[in-house]
Order: sequence, then C-alpha cells, then structure tokens
Amino acid sequence: MTNPTATLLISCPDQRGLVAKIANFIYANGGNIIHADQHTDFAAELFLTRIEWQLDGFNLPREFIAPAFNAIAQPLGAKWELHFSDTVSRIAIWVSRQDHCLFDLIWRQRAQEFAAEIPLIISNHPHLKEVVEQFGIDYHHIPITKDHKAEQEAQQLELLQQYKIDLVVLAKYMQIVSADFIAKFPRIINIHHSFLPAFVGANPYHRASERGVKIIGATAHYATADLDAGPIIEQDVVRVSHRDEVDDLIRKGKDLERVVLARAVRLHLQNRVLVYGNRTVVFE
Amino acid sequence: MTNPTATLLISCPDQRGLVAKIANFIYANGGNIIHADQHTDFAAELFLTRIEWQLDGFNLPREFIAPAFNAIAQPLGAKWELHFSDTVSRIAIWVSRQDHCLFDLIWRQRAQEFAAEIPLIISNHPHLKEVVEQFGIDYHHIPITKDHKAEQEAQQLELLQQYKIDLVVLAKYMQIVSADFIAKFPRIINIHHSFLPAFVGANPYHRASERGVKIIGATAHYATADLDAGPIIEQDVVRVSHRDEVDDLIRKGKDLERVVLARAVRLHLQNRVLVYGNRTVVFE
Amino acid sequence: MTNPTATLLISCPDQRGLVAKIANFIYANGGNIIHADQHTDFAAELFLTRIEWQLDGFNLPREFIAPAFNAIAQPLGAKWELHFSDTVSRIAIWVSRQDHCLFDLIWRQRAQEFAAEIPLIISNHPHLKEVVEQFGIDYHHIPITKDHKAEQEAQQLELLQQYKIDLVVLAKYMQIVSADFIAKFPRIINIHHSFLPAFVGANPYHRASERGVKIIGATAHYATADLDAGPIIEQDVVRVSHRDEVDDLIRKGKDLERVVLARAVRLHLQNRVLVYGNRTVVFE
Amino acid sequence: MTNPTATLLISCPDQRGLVAKIANFIYANGGNIIHADQHTDFAAELFLTRIEWQLDGFNLPREFIAPAFNAIAQPLGAKWELHFSDTVSRIAIWVSRQDHCLFDLIWRQRAQEFAAEIPLIISNHPHLKEVVEQFGIDYHHIPITKDHKAEQEAQQLELLQQYKIDLVVLAKYMQIVSADFIAKFPRIINIHHSFLPAFVGANPYHRASERGVKIIGATAHYATADLDAGPIIEQDVVRVSHRDEVDDLIRKGKDLERVVLARAVRLHLQNRVLVYGNRTVVFE
Repeated sequence: MTNPTATLLISCPDQRGLVAKIANFIYANGGNIIHADQHTDFAAELFLTRIEWQLDGFNLPREFIAPAFNAIAQPLGAKWELHFSDTVSRIAIWVSRQDHCLFDLIWRQRAQEFAAEIPLIISNHPHLKEVVEQFGIDYHHIPITKDHKAEQEAQQLELLQQYKIDLVVLAKYMQIVSADFIAKFPRIINIHHSFLPAFVGANPYHRASERGVKIIGATAHYATADLDAGPIIEQDVVRVSHRDEVDDLIRKGKDLERVVLARAVRLHLQNRVLVYGNRTVVFE
Repeated sequence: MTNPTATLLISCPDQRGLVAKIANFIYANGGNIIHADQHTDFAAELFLTRIEWQLDGFNLPREFIAPAFNAIAQPLGAKWELHFSDTVSRIAIWVSRQDHCLFDLIWRQRAQEFAAEIPLIISNHPHLKEVVEQFGIDYHHIPITKDHKAEQEAQQLELLQQYKIDLVVLAKYMQIVSADFIAKFPRIINIHHSFLPAFVGANPYHRASERGVKIIGATAHYATADLDAGPIIEQDVVRVSHRDEVDDLIRKGKDLERVVLARAVRLHLQNRVLVYGNRTVVFE
Repeated sequence: MTNPTATLLISCPDQRGLVAKIANFIYANGGNIIHADQHTDFAAELFLTRIEWQLDGFNLPREFIAPAFNAIAQPLGAKWELHFSDTVSRIAIWVSRQDHCLFDLIWRQRAQEFAAEIPLIISNHPHLKEVVEQFGIDYHHIPITKDHKAEQEAQQLELLQQYKIDLVVLAKYMQIVSADFIAKFPRIINIHHSFLPAFVGANPYHRASERGVKIIGATAHYATADLDAGPIIEQDVVRVSHRDEVDDLIRKGKDLERVVLARAVRLHLQNRVLVYGNRTVVFE
Repeated sequence: MTNPTATLLISCPDQRGLVAKIANFIYANGGNIIHADQHTDFAAELFLTRIEWQLDGFNLPREFIAPAFNAIAQPLGAKWELHFSDTVSRIAIWVSRQDHCLFDLIWRQRAQEFAAEIPLIISNHPHLKEVVEQFGIDYHHIPITKDHKAEQEAQQLELLQQYKIDLVVLAKYMQIVSADFIAKFPRIINIHHSFLPAFVGANPYHRASERGVKIIGATAHYATADLDAGPIIEQDVVRVSHRDEVDDLIRKGKDLERVVLARAVRLHLQNRVLVYGNRTVVFE
C-alpha cells in the first residue's frame, strides 16, 4: 500500500443518507474506498465515520478536496478533518528524567512503525541531552520554575513553531502544562499510570502497593485543561502480586506505559482517532 | 433499540463505488443506517461489509428487500446474506458429559443476552436429561456407535428439521460430526481447547502440563469437514503456572470455553460474522 | 489428593529461624509438607507464610495441633490460623435482583470446584425465591428499610448462626452492610466493578461510557467498614470499545464479576488468602 | 536490598523433612531467609524449592556454602544450584537482521533492570555492527554456511569462552544452533512466535493471517536439541483482528517478543527458574 490515501474523519448530527452522500462524493470523483467504518452514538445522536480512499485515480487534485467536501459537509452540520497518508508528521517529545517512553518512541520511528519525524526533544532536565543528540535529534533544556512558567511556555511554543511540530508527546514529562498552552497547541498526547481503584495524590505506586492491588494499568489520552481527564485513546493493564515490591510495580508500569503510549501515537498518526465531547472513537 | 433492523453481510470482488451503491440502495428507500463497517482484504482482492439499518421508515416491505438488493448484487458478483434483528434464532445444543458450556448458554439465553430460543438438546449420553428438562427443554439421547453412525446422524438431522433449528452449538460434544452431515447442515459452531504450542492427540491437558505451558487457550469456530480447522470466530487465553495441576488446567479451560463459546454464539446471532475462504471477518 | 491436609497461615514480625522453627514443628511430628510458600514484606518487617501438610502419618491428633503450635507461635509474636482441607465450609450468598454471580457460584459448587455447601440465600428482594428453591436451597427474603435496618441485620445475623455459616458472599447484594454487622461477622467477600480511572457515585457504567474508557474491571475483596476499600483478593479486566453501549459494558462487566468473584471465593476456601493491614497475600 | 543474598534451587525426590532440613541448615548458620517457595510435583514425586537468604550475618564464608550444603543434599538425592545475588552475569546476545529484541535488552540492561553485563554480540549479518558499537559492545560477524557450520560454531564457542559468557540470548537469531553446540553450552534462551493453533513451516504469520486467528503469542524457552521444544520460561499473547494485515501481525509479534524475552531473561538472572524434565518451575 505505497499508494497514498486520503482520510476523512467526520462527526455529524445523525440523519438519513449520510453514508450515501459521503460515499457518492468519493465515487463520483473516481475514488476507491479501502477503509470505511462508521459508528452511531445514539445517546448523543451523532454519526461518526472514518473513510479512507486511494488518491491514485481520484479526479480531484488534493487542494480541491477540502473545499469540495465542505460544500457537502456544511448543510449537514458536520465537523470534519482531512488527512493524507503520505504526510510525515513532525513530533516533539517532551521528557523529564525517565527515558523509557522516549527511547521506545525513537526506536519505533527508526523501525518505521510511524510515518513521522522526531526533530525535537524538550526537557526540563539536562541529563538526557548527550544520548539524544547521538540520534541526531535536537535537545532543548528548558527548566520550569514557578515564577517564570509563562515565559518558559512561550519559549516552548516558539520551538514548536520553529520546528513545525504537528504533535507533542508527553513521554513522562512531569510538569503541568497550562490550560493556556493547551488552548494554543491542543495536539498533545499524554501517558499516565492508572489503578483499580484509583489512587489520588503523591506516590501512587506506593499506595497501590500498600493496598495490595492485583492489576496496574496505563492510560494514554489527549491533554486537556483538566490534565489527566482528557479523551482516552488507549489503555492496558498488567497483573501484579504481593511479590511485586514498589520497584517492581514501577518497572512493570514502565513496560506498560511504553506500549500504551506507542499504540496511542500510532493510532493518532494513522488518523484513526476521532474526538468528540470528552471521548474518542478509535477506528481500529 | 427495540426498533427492528435489517443487516446485509456482503463479500464482493473489490471495485470502485461499492460503498456508494450499497448506501444509495438503502438511502433511496428511506433507510437509516446505524452500523456500517467495511474491510478490504487486499491479498484476496475482496471487499467485505456489514450494513445495518432501521426498518422503521424503510419504504420496501421486508419480502421485497432481497429481490431488490439482488438486482444490485448480481452485476457486482457479490455474495450476500440478509438478516432481520427480530428473527429469533432456534438453537440446538449438542453435549456429551460436560455441562459447563450447556448451562452457561442456557443461563445467557434466559438473561436475554441472546435473541434466541433453545428448544432442543441432543446428547450421546443420557445423564443430563433430568436437569435439562427442568428448564423445559426437550432432551434427545442419541448414542453414537461406529456401525450405525449414518442412521444416528440421519436421526439428528431429522430432529433439527423437526425443531426448525437454525444453529447447532457443539457445547463439548465429544463425537466427530461427519463431513456428510456438515454438508447438509453447515451452521455449526464448535469450541475446543488450544495451546501454545499445540498438542496433537489424546489428553492434551496432560501433555500441556508435562510441557509446563504458561498459557492455555480456547477457540470457537465453525465446524468444517476437517473438524478443528474451520473458520475461527473467537479465541481467548488464561495464564497458568506450575502450581496448576492437570485438574486446574481443565477447570481454567472450562471457564475459558464457556466465555469464548458464548461470545462466538452471540456474534453469530447478531450477524456480525462473515465467513470467506477458511477465515472470518468479525464486525464487532 | 483425597489425603486430608492441614494448613497454617502465619504472619509474624520478621526474625531469623522462622522457616526452620515452623518446618521442624511439622517434621518432628511426622508431617509431609506439600505446599510451603513464604513472603517477606520488608516495609512492614513482616514474615508471612502458608504451609500445608498431609495429616496422614502426622503424629499429633487434630485437636492437639493448635495448642501445640501455639506454644511455638506465642514467643514469636505470630498471628496464625489453622485449617483442615476436609472441612466443608458453609456459605450464605446474599443477592438483590441480579442473578449472574449467584447462579455461577451454585453451578461451581455443584461441579465441585468448591469444597463448600450453600445452604442459605438471603435477599432483599423476593423474586429469585422460586428458582433458588429448585436447587434445594433455603431462600430468606429480608427487605431492608432505613428505619428498621438494625432489626433486619439482627435477623440476618441470626440466620447466619442458625445455618452455621462460615462465609458470606455478597453476590451483587446492593445494600450497604453496616460496620456494626461486619464487626460481628467479618468473613464477607464482596464483588464490585472497577474502572480506570475510577468513577465515584451513581451509574458508573454510564459515566465510563461517556468517558470512552477502553477497559473495565472487577474487584473481589473482603468487606470492611469502609465498604469498597477492603483487602483485595482478586481483580481482572476486559477490553471494551466505543461500539460497546452501556448495556454491553454491563453485560461484559457481569461476565467479569462472575469469574473474579468465583476465583476469590475459591482462593478463600482453599485458605490461600492471608490478610494483613488492609491488604492480602494470595498464596497461589 | 543491597544486602547480597544466596539462593538455592533444589529438586529432590519427595520425602518428609525436606523443608526442615534445608531451613535448619540456613538457620544453624545464622542466615535470614527472605524468600522461600516450594512446589511438589505429585506426578513426578519431586520436591522443588527456591530458598534465598541474606549473606550478611551468615556464618559460613561463601566458598564453604556449597560443600557444606552438599553434605545435606547428597543423602537426599537432590540436584541443586547455588547462586549469589551480586554475581554479575555476562550475556552474549545473538542476532540476525531484526533488532527489536536486541535493543530492548540493551536498554533494560542500561536501565539496570538486569544485574548483568552485555559485552558481546554475535551475528550472522554485518549490518547492526555500527549501531551496536556505539553502545561500546563488541560485535562479531560470523556468517553461517552449510559447509562450514562446525568451524563457525567452534568460533562462536571460543568467543563465549574468551568473553566469559554465562548466558546466550538468541534475540531473533535465525540460524539453527546444533545439538552439539547446545551440549557444550547449554545456558541458551530463545524466543519464538506461537499461534493458536500452531502453524508449522515457513511464513507462519502469513498462514496465521490466512486462517484469521484472533490471538498471536510468543514463547521464551531454553534451547534444546529439538530446537523449539525446550522448557518454557514465559509466554504471552496479544489480540489481533481481520484488520491486522501480515505486517501488523509481525509488528504486534515483535512487541510481544521483546517483552516476553526480557521477562524470561530477568527471571533466569534472578535464579527464579528451575528446570526439570522438559519443563520449568518459575518461582515468581
């Protein structure tokens, strides 16, 4: 499938004829649909769909697809996004001290699991600089301090613009990103540990250990102003037992975080995630 | 969603315009699509889809839907099935001595997890008769013997016809069903244990225990002439350890078989399983 | 292994020689240890162990084992329990309207997965009476009302004594059991749903659906005064997606609750669960 | 727990007093047991145990522990191994073209998940040389040819001796290691994909895809003369669907192989794996 494709992600008040109208638009222009998946949220009375078709043989030039589809979407009250499979997204990874998610994402990008470039790492610590630069990636150390956070976030935002970043991945970045920043740059994926039941506050692994939980989890989600409460993209869990001391929980948690974050980033980059309300449809 | 729906399961050589043609057929007749899922098997060059729409407000009477759709399907070389959600399927459960899958299916049917009736149990053993009849289900004891298998299968087939059975579930029925029988009544779902690696021959749980496997599995599939090699509907696994003796493996295997078989039966009854070649697409 | 065994569950401040002292006690009396598992909680400086040995050939009569072991345990500051494998525990199951856990436990007891009797069902609703009595089990309908809860709990307690109940299983019993009751009868296992993240308050499945969670869970634990916060015995999860409506979440949650509760009850009955602080060691 | 420990792994014909005798040996010499786990294989009439105690305060010097314990073990007919927790194992990783398991192991070693050094990589291909050497690890390219395999294996063996290697990890090494080699150097862990059902022969991922499996797995095991049939250390699985093309199966398989192999290597290095017959007890 080196044949490039276009993908539409559409959410729209439910009504008769939506599938037909969208499919006709593609067929009338000679497109061959290779994936079409649709979901109706009956409670929200919303129709949600993902349609992907081959650009080879499609009669509309790329730059005309969006305006042409807009003429269909507007009367339906639809929200939509158009993506092309050969777009190479530019990712900035933000880290603190822990490197497990960072190196996992770099390895996967090298292994071509993602159609993306990683030109920029931002960290509030200096110590991963040397090893990151071995991979030929720029590393910017921006310490975060209470009194100067606004300036520091302005600096971060400028870097994102300078490097033409499409997506920020918080790969165990242990600082709070302000609501103001997220409003300006909303395409941010975060990873955090999750427990059954949840443990609020500091040292959750210690508290999970004290409670003797049998399962620990990780959740990847879009960052929102209410930091850990954004739309969930992916979750997974791993079994633990009384034999797992706090260090073991943390180690197992890291393995989980690597895999869950990588899956979420990949789903996002493949334009398989449609956000509506505070939730997602993941068209796997 | 008490509103009844129609579902089309379609497989068709891939070509442009398929989604549009099918969606137009439904839209032109006033149907509201509530689920549409599509998959392209590039290797097989096949387009596979499941479309479900509300019958309420649909202009075509039920009996005209199939002939009308046939006019569209034939030129495309499509194979298709049409189902209505308010059809109550009639299931015959076949068992031997083990009752775990049997009672699980009966309980789920009572709990209305399935839109189905279970009017008939067939067994090659007599001993579950009494308890099955407490549920008001007819129990037919048909012993299987090498020399009279053909007659016995004829008797089984007659019962299926007499009870107007749509689906046979082999719920740990420990007899081989002949290729001839399956040719005459192909809608049969079977459950069996699975291992990594596989253990061929007798006493697989003993051999899995001797090998010290860390995982055991179960597979639900359609029965085919080559008995355990039919299209897979659902699989799952459970972790085991050296502490699990053969009896524990069997007990854990039973729990798995119950859940995996029930999921497969439910997916089939919801018309979510499309078989092609020796495999399935499960439109979950 | 029809050979009956004795099991000691011991927790004790950590010190040298514990394994030797306990093993010597059994060996000196001619016992053959078949399972011995030990865990040290370094944070709590506690030694926790489970030792099981065959009674066949053991020189001490059963009634002398406890006093003899007490002479060893007391100087060590140990807490301990002694159990015999041929004790048939008597279980009371408490239910409300939902029957999935109830029937699952009954089926497993019949299938001899548990060495237990189930002579008593207590419910705050009348409607499962008839079907439960078909199994030959007594069903007591005790409605719970705010104003008379103390009397009603007194009635429940009296039934537990009258039926010589060893263990209460709250199999989706939707009433709060008072701290006072739990103080008087502490051997109670409860099951409840769990989410990542947690949803506090009413209608958690609706809220989990709104949040678009990808995983739902179930937790079996001992009941404590703070109802859902007792020591966890077993947990498990199942994947869900946007295709799962609230009803599907509830159905999948039920499947999980059945399995998780049954595993917890079995582990308890096999004397594999040692509670200390607000957590458990499960000697699987 | 920087306090170093000694670990005994013992297998022995089952008999009374084994736990007492072993525990007494440690207690008599002033040792503090921190982990003791025991398993009886009733079918094999074997007693299997792992005992770990702190060397701090233990009266026997390290070099006297083995001879002293031998005096106890010999009359019991026991096989045993003695390990010290501060021994840093030396690992050689063997690879072909795929690098996912290799880099995962290197990352974990750097993250101190393993108490091990990785001084040597052997490959039948040259192309990972440069990147491996960036980590400061020696890379030996030994092409394997049918006609000179004996010499090439002699060369490999010499390298293992020269680098004082304790453990070989076949991290997707796609050559067969001869029975002769394994006899000379038996401490080899291998990883391979697993399926339910199994697919024998070439291109198993293609065949699994054609069969429409819903689960794929990975198995880590000790290498034996019958290559993929050695004692299993760890297994795990991941769900797949019809949407996963062969490339996706391979990608998901890689993720699984990384985690399963890493877990197996860690369990081995912590002396938690006891091999007997063709199976293992993993004292987790």
